[in-house]
Amino acid sequence: MSNTEKKPIRLGMVGGGEGAFIGEVHRFASRLDGAYELVAGALSSTPEKARSSGEALGLAPDRIYDNFEQMATQESARADGIDAVAIVTPNHMHFAPAKLFLEHGIHVICDKPLTSNLEDAKALYEVASRSDALFVLTHNYTGYPMMRQARQMVANGELGNIRLVQSEYVQDWLTEEADNKQASWRTDPKRSGAGGSIGDIGTHAFNLSCFVSGLEVESIAADLQSFVPGRQVDDNAHIMFRFSGGARGTLWCSQVAPGNENGLRLRIYGDKGGLEWAQEDPNFLWFTPFGEPTRKITRNGPGAGEAASRLSRIPPGHPEAIWKVSPIFTAKQQPPSARLVRAPKLIQWCTSPRSRMG
Amino acid sequence: MSNTEKKPIRLGMVGGGEGAFIGEVHRFASRLDGAYELVAGALSSTPEKARSSGEALGLAPDRIYDNFEQMATQESARADGIDAVAIVTPNHMHFAPAKLFLEHGIHVICDKPLTSNLEDAKALYEVASRSDALFVLTHNYTGYPMMRQARQMVANGELGNIRLVQSEYVQDWLTEEADNKQASWRTDPKRSGAGGSIGDIGTHAFNLSCFVSGLEVESIAADLQSFVPGRQVDDNAHIMFRFSGGARGTLWCSQVAPGNENGLRLRIYGDKGGLEWAQEDPNFLWFTPFGEPTRKITRNGPGAGEAASRLSRIPPGHPEAIWKVSPIFTAKQQPPSARLVRAPKLIQWCTSPRSRMG
Amino acid sequence: MSNTEKKPIRLGMVGGGEGAFIGEVHRFASRLDGAYELVAGALSSTPEKARSSGEALGLAPDRIYDNFEQMATQESARADGIDAVAIVTPNHMHFAPAKLFLEHGIHVICDKPLTSNLEDAKALYEVASRSDALFVLTHNYTGYPMMRQARQMVANGELGNIRLVQSEYVQDWLTEEADNKQASWRTDPKRSGAGGSIGDIGTHAFNLSCFVSGLEVESIAADLQSFVPGRQVDDNAHIMFRFSGGARGTLWCSQVAPGNENGLRLRIYGDKGGLEWAQEDPNFLWFTPFGEPTRKITRNGPGAGEAASRLSRIPPGHPEAIWKVSPIFTAKQQPPSARLVRAPKLIQWCTSPRSRMG
Amino acid sequence: MSNTEKKPIRLGMVGGGEGAFIGEVHRFASRLDGAYELVAGALSSTPEKARSSGEALGLAPDRIYDNFEQMATQESARADGIDAVAIVTPNHMHFAPAKLFLEHGIHVICDKPLTSNLEDAKALYEVASRSDALFVLTHNYTGYPMMRQARQMVANGELGNIRLVQSEYVQDWLTEEADNKQASWRTDPKRSGAGGSIGDIGTHAFNLSCFVSGLEVESIAADLQSFVPGRQVDDNAHIMFRFSGGARGTLWCSQVAPGNENGLRLRIYGDKGGLEWAQEDPNFLWFTPFGEPTRKITRNGPGAGEAASRLSRIPPGHPEAIWKVSPIFTAKQQPPSARLVRAPKLIQWCTSPRSRMG
Repeated sequence: MSNTEKKPIRLGMVGGGEGAFIGEVHRFASRLDGAYELVAGALSSTPEKARSSGEALGLAPDRIYDNFEQMATQESARADGIDAVAIVTPNHMHFAPAKLFLEHGIHVICDKPLTSNLEDAKALYEVASRSDALFVLTHNYTGYPMMRQARQMVANGELGNIRLVQSEYVQDWLTEEADNKQASWRTDPKRSGAGGSIGDIGTHAFNLSCFVSGLEVESIAADLQSFVPGRQVDDNAHIMFRFSGGARGTLWCSQVAPGNENGLRLRIYGDKGGLEWAQEDPNFLWFTPFGEPTRKITRNGPGAGEAASRLSRIPPGHPEAIWKVSPIFTAKQQPPSARLVRAPKLIQWCTSPRSRMG
Repeated sequence: MSNTEKKPIRLGMVGGGEGAFIGEVHRFASRLDGAYELVAGALSSTPEKARSSGEALGLAPDRIYDNFEQMATQESARADGIDAVAIVTPNHMHFAPAKLFLEHGIHVICDKPLTSNLEDAKALYEVASRSDALFVLTHNYTGYPMMRQARQMVANGELGNIRLVQSEYVQDWLTEEADNKQASWRTDPKRSGAGGSIGDIGTHAFNLSCFVSGLEVESIAADLQSFVPGRQVDDNAHIMFRFSGGARGTLWCSQVAPGNENGLRLRIYGDKGGLEWAQEDPNFLWFTPFGEPTRKITRNGPGAGEAASRLSRIPPGHPEAIWKVSPIFTAKQQPPSARLVRAPKLIQWCTSPRSRMG
Repeated sequence: MSNTEKKPIRLGMVGGGEGAFIGEVHRFASRLDGAYELVAGALSSTPEKARSSGEALGLAPDRIYDNFEQMATQESARADGIDAVAIVTPNHMHFAPAKLFLEHGIHVICDKPLTSNLEDAKALYEVASRSDALFVLTHNYTGYPMMRQARQMVANGELGNIRLVQSEYVQDWLTEEADNKQASWRTDPKRSGAGGSIGDIGTHAFNLSCFVSGLEVESIAADLQSFVPGRQVDDNAHIMFRFSGGARGTLWCSQVAPGNENGLRLRIYGDKGGLEWAQEDPNFLWFTPFGEPTRKITRNGPGAGEAASRLSRIPPGHPEAIWKVSPIFTAKQQPPSARLVRAPKLIQWCTSPRSRMG
Repeated sequence: MSNTEKKPIRLGMVGGGEGAFIGEVHRFASRLDGAYELVAGALSSTPEKARSSGEALGLAPDRIYDNFEQMATQESARADGIDAVAIVTPNHMHFAPAKLFLEHGIHVICDKPLTSNLEDAKALYEVASRSDALFVLTHNYTGYPMMRQARQMVANGELGNIRLVQSEYVQDWLTEEADNKQASWRTDPKRSGAGGSIGDIGTHAFNLSCFVSGLEVESIAADLQSFVPGRQVDDNAHIMFRFSGGARGTLWCSQVAPGNENGLRLRIYGDKGGLEWAQEDPNFLWFTPFGEPTRKITRNGPGAGEAASRLSRIPPGHPEAIWKVSPIFTAKQQPPSARLVRAPKLIQWCTSPRSRMG
């Protein structure tokens, strides 16, 4: 009975037309709990494709838009206009629609990274701060139940004082020059922004490191590299961190490490214990209280607590994937902070609240 | 764009009210691709609970029924009546509603096991054979992409002649006398039928063994046991098989093996190679051509073929769970045999077709 | 300082000449702690090979024998004659030398299985019972520290009443007709005895099941098969057990399961907890107290006790292999029972004492 | 028949008396193949302990020495004097005995690290260059068969041009202030030298990185930390490398990461493939040719070649540990380069030849 609200949230989408990857994933996630209804879309920058994509999704003809500006104007004028918009475009197209929908008072669910440059990010922060609408950034991996469990255990002091935060996100799909839609925009600095692997996947590892540890970074040393000849953005990065309070850590992201599909991994150690987790086997969290045997904590199994079960739908032992944005959409989720409780109907989205932009 | 049909299938549900487990899982699965719309329900045998459960799910008041007989009669009389019904009750309540809805020409999606005794199973087979409606049994694990991959590899001869099929489904949640709704009916022969662990989980291991190997059993030797004092059904079973054609195998199911959550595992060996798979890590299939190194085949990764990708929604490396009944509901799925192509709108359900009942 | 005895035990060997496998492994094991000195041998049934093998090992010319009868006679007559003999021949050549050396008062370390038929086994038991010399059977896997740990935990009641003992020993090297020395005698009933896989490897799984659980078998149901055309002994066996006291279990051994090298695995469950162990990753033991997270107990790590550390030489984290017979030879080992304390110098051998033959 | 030389090498030992760790491991390794015989020792800096330790090991009374100077003088004067000496003292005591024995023409097998400061290392290099005796440094992990396999595969071009070398060696035993012999000298800069974790374990990870990749480091950025209050040496280090030819990599070593025993791990990636290996599961090497499924290569199994089998004693599937210095002592080993073939009897030691000091 996860859909405790009888009226689903009316959702629009920018991007996500035929051939897109992340837009479809957002749609899977939006349907799962029955809490959203996709009713409008500016699904492609090519009007014909926007139309055919909208029709394939069964949108009403008058709510299939040629561009996001049109959608923002018309939807905000309707009595039954969208409550929220999901922005699932390449990085360079996050800022403009996010700003516009916020200015129209429509909540924004934006795929990461925030924007493709720092200037836009700061400007967006200003806009979001002035708006009554929420701005939500989908760092989806924080929605894994075992990442919530880890964060809770750190907060409870079960690891003691945190000393080390080791993260990595390693892939291999860009080992060679690739010629497909996903590779193309991700390696084009005009569309991806200055970052290659660092923006596409490193951002997730960094986000998890801070989310779970509760720490902030004080200084970094980084070595970025483009291994594939002709590549204009980094396809590998090594970063060393010094966190506030004395903890240290590293982040390794790569898209050129053959044998790795989505090797997102987090290891965190304090003076009382350690935790290890790997995204490709996400239902397990390995916990070692110093001087005791390592324990395998499973989602909803013994040893896992409320922080994990709040984001979980099924019993232990049944592998539970995370839909790219499911933590955001799940109706079970409680707001991480009181500052979010402004738009009750949207409470369940808010994994990465605006307040984290500050 | 998985929802290529603009009009979702209208779905009713028998069972699955407040406190139920499998009904909610069916609802998750039905929503994921947007191919179904839950519009009616007889959600509990207690009328008040049936009503409050239906309201919580947002059903129209006139389509919340006190019992399944009422639902069958009234829905079959409506122009916009349900196309299909999901039966998610305890085992002893599969037969009666399944029979009734088939007789009303409404397709039936029934949770396993088929019925709680052999007599009912045979009777249901007769009913289903005479009906134009489909009868679908949700042996959901066959919907895992890597089980499809395995079945395809066996069919392709990549393992040679099959010699051994080793399966197990091992849990621990009934190690002690349990006092909760799920344990209660599963250990009560009046509701679960004669089988305990063998009907609840052994049936999945058996189904997978046959589904992947393509073999039929010729003879068995079984040793069933009730370890927990006072338990009236088996909580552990060891079975040895002789398959047609000379292959052999075993099945072990248990609900009293501490440390196992949902240890469903299949290993199959032929004279040219072997395959191993474990449900708790379902995105990997381990393949060894005899005399060569073992290979890790990943969902949608190199080495995986079309049989796997048809049932998969996301790229490799992003763990993809299987919703309890998702293979049945997925709009991507093709019919396993031509005999199913009678109700085109329902093609996508038919993992375990009526023909397998024969 | 493991060699606390300054005078090593004088060892002879029957079998183990050029091209042999297990004889060399016995020699590795005998050297490791410096507790044995190989001084005599009847290393092959071919005198020339016996001689060249003995020379290659640096034996004195007068202690290289043409046959075991000669060795028994002459060594028992020497003042500095061998204290013990290791019998490392094919199965059919265990009985005669074992009987002879026992009759000469020389301790016998015999590779498994005991003999190649039951009649010989009973006769050997009589001989061993009358002899002052020890008879030691090298069921070496009981020497793994984590198997000692497991046995101790069962004995301590940490698993409660044992309900299930699941064992398997699975290989693939005989998947096809093989033409080499090791395969040749193992598939020839004249040399291996009636058992194929069951005698070669099944015996280890069975031994471990009893060693760790402390249970005795009451009745069995077995299905043996020879899959490879023309093979005269079993290459696969499925066995179901009923143990005294009500526990049940299975044993699967196979030499035709592609992808398995030495898949010896033991899982044991009681009403309070469960244990799992795999020989190919022998330094870890997985323990689940019912209702708590699974723990990874490591050799010499936290959670492992004295029973394990007695048979271990190095700290945790450094993988420690078990030489085929090392538990028998290790000077650290204490006698499993007081009945063994008859030949103090040999105490350290006695993993599988004669008393278990009864 | 690994001992093809009838006369074992006569070995002396400096350090390794009662309570020592690494000395005993050297003794295990020296015995395994029967190629060495321990005949002399200066086993402790405390004469009484040196004597009782030597007696416990069964050394002749006149070859138990009070100090290494005495042993060098007297052994080099004997006709049956030691051929080689194993130096197994704390780091600060490597230089003086190594220098002295080399000057006496006795081969030196020295535990890592080379010396406790750079000045001594350079001086030792000069001495070794002028000596006819060999200087051998026991970076033992290079003796794992699968590390030889990896190195061969890199040399064969199976990974293409190497881009990334990621290594780590992570432990937890110094998470808190420890009070035992092993911890004591390792955290005392007077005895361990300037390095803590970096010299004790980081040196192994670095050695493996270069050994397998064949690359040399051009520049580094390192961040060392002492987390435990009062600790005078590093207990954690993060290092970024730029290798000659453009490859990059990192090394993480730590002794304060709870849950890690001896987490030595190497991952290496080129433009054609990747390799992954972990010391705690050393018999497996994971190889991914880009665009193909990952393969599990096992020691002596299909896919493993001669480079691995040369250093292996037993068939696949039987876990084979590496004794701390076994690669050095094994009689099977061939010299890595022609420059070593000066002292034929010692060829089999030379994993880390003097030439690598240059």
